[in-house]
Amino acid sequence: MDRIYQIGIVGGREADPGILRLAEEAGRLIARRGALLICGGMGGVMEAACRGAKSEGGTTVGILPTADRGDANPWVDVAIVTDLGVARNAVIIHSCDAVIAVGGRYGTLSEMAFARQLGKPLVSLGSWRFDASVTTAAGAEEAVARLFELLARGHSGE
Amino acid sequence: MDRIYQIGIVGGREADPGILRLAEEAGRLIARRGALLICGGMGGVMEAACRGAKSEGGTTVGILPTADRGDANPWVDVAIVTDLGVARNAVIIHSCDAVIAVGGRYGTLSEMAFARQLGKPLVSLGSWRFDASVTTAAGAEEAVARLFELLARGHSGE
Amino acid sequence: MDRIYQIGIVGGREADPGILRLAEEAGRLIARRGALLICGGMGGVMEAACRGAKSEGGTTVGILPTADRGDANPWVDVAIVTDLGVARNAVIIHSCDAVIAVGGRYGTLSEMAFARQLGKPLVSLGSWRFDASVTTAAGAEEAVARLFELLARGHSGE
Amino acid sequence: MDRIYQIGIVGGREADPGILRLAEEAGRLIARRGALLICGGMGGVMEAACRGAKSEGGTTVGILPTADRGDANPWVDVAIVTDLGVARNAVIIHSCDAVIAVGGRYGTLSEMAFARQLGKPLVSLGSWRFDASVTTAAGAEEAVARLFELLARGHSGE
Repeated sequence: MDRIYQIGIVGGREADPGILRLAEEAGRLIARRGALLICGGMGGVMEAACRGAKSEGGTTVGILPTADRGDANPWVDVAIVTDLGVARNAVIIHSCDAVIAVGGRYGTLSEMAFARQLGKPLVSLGSWRFDASVTTAAGAEEAVARLFELLARGHSGE
Repeated sequence: MDRIYQIGIVGGREADPGILRLAEEAGRLIARRGALLICGGMGGVMEAACRGAKSEGGTTVGILPTADRGDANPWVDVAIVTDLGVARNAVIIHSCDAVIAVGGRYGTLSEMAFARQLGKPLVSLGSWRFDASVTTAAGAEEAVARLFELLARGHSGE
Repeated sequence: MDRIYQIGIVGGREADPGILRLAEEAGRLIARRGALLICGGMGGVMEAACRGAKSEGGTTVGILPTADRGDANPWVDVAIVTDLGVARNAVIIHSCDAVIAVGGRYGTLSEMAFARQLGKPLVSLGSWRFDASVTTAAGAEEAVARLFELLARGHSGE
Repeated sequence: MDRIYQIGIVGGREADPGILRLAEEAGRLIARRGALLICGGMGGVMEAACRGAKSEGGTTVGILPTADRGDANPWVDVAIVTDLGVARNAVIIHSCDAVIAVGGRYGTLSEMAFARQLGKPLVSLGSWRFDASVTTAAGAEEAVARLFELLARGHSGE
């Protein structure tokens, strides 16, 4: 199909500098591939990924858990305001053609579980590896390369 | 604020040609004002509005009720896939700074009710007028003009 | 079918004493018919309806918009905690076999619109009458009688 | 507080006989403790847990992902019809005071992640153990005993 890929980067609002650098680099590489960046729109990994994508002229979508568009980080182009709380994690994953998880805690784990359940290609970059089928990557470049390989092969990575 | 306005056009999947022309014209005018078009992403009024916005080089967001990105009409740039059924109507309204209802039946009525409940400026263009506070317009140009007046005055039109 | 009917009473958190009396009486009558009461679980009309149902030994379900079970009124037996904000209005209506709207403002209007959209029997008791198809009732007894007639006839009242 | 505990049993629609026996036994023990059973309302582990609770005269709540009350298993007393797809997993966990996961795959993993994120006591009974903080149990009796200990201590088990 001719549609532009919608690629998700998921991760926590709080993250250490190394994780934030990975998220920013992954955001940059996704934009460079001409894909749209989908994320949760808040701070931390989400903000780093958006900043990376914008530095390459990409477009960013933030799917917020709150009722206030003003909660979006400054690099979000399109703010989807859900007021759904953690249930918005399901909307993020449904909206993605493929997902990279960068660091993260339990919210990220729920998103990775949804990615698996919904059959979306998923790469873990310094994030959970809850079973042997999770594709892992050592760096942002490898993560994005693997994700696009999975997309090209048209399956979820299982 | 400097953020680009996110303007919603809501209405039914089935509509007569006059309503579709109004939706397309409203979509065009919203894009001409530099605003982002938010809609439900399906056919009918949603598709006409997106087609109008794209004809002016605008950007369109479709917030789908289903689980399949392929359900989006061909003029949707950003597909938000919710699988929330009619509950996605709340997400549409939360994501809008202001809303124009064009024709429509009960789904549209739920969206207009949410716009009122959430205090979003709302204009009815050939749609419901469930109480005296609903701002109405006779044509697409008047509808868009009134909506931006309401936004400029910073209130919901009540 | 042998399943117990799940009947919704929807209305506002704030209501004048006459409306609250109607809601309490409707709750009583629903319990007397052996049906389960579904509502939004908060104060006002929802609390009055639950109090009425409990006075007849009925069972009450409150589908809350917030993340805190403690927000339920004291007459709620089963608390469904959604944290979905106004999107929980859709869950309320989906969960009802039939709905009575008592008073109410825009939140109630969204619920009545969903009842129509989803084809659920609906009676307006001092509430919105947004089109000629809405069945109205002058008192609680008439409202409950009409609702069960609509259920018995197996259609939505249109 | 005097409120009756709302205890969740989460797990898959398909499960082997050993897992189903654990779910049924856990359902029985939850009802014997006077708690309300919350589950996803479908077949497999959900149905087994409901059947167990009903065999002890308990009350069962099924929070369904679909739009059809008829999808509930025959042991569901209260059917919450969400039509939210996998996002209903968040509603299940929000509605529980504590959760037992029995077997299960990725949907169950998302529910366990939400339990952790929302700070709900959680016991894994033949289910995921994604980090060292997850409390595990070797049988249904131990699982229920541990869950009520965690509830009594007023924390989430971390």
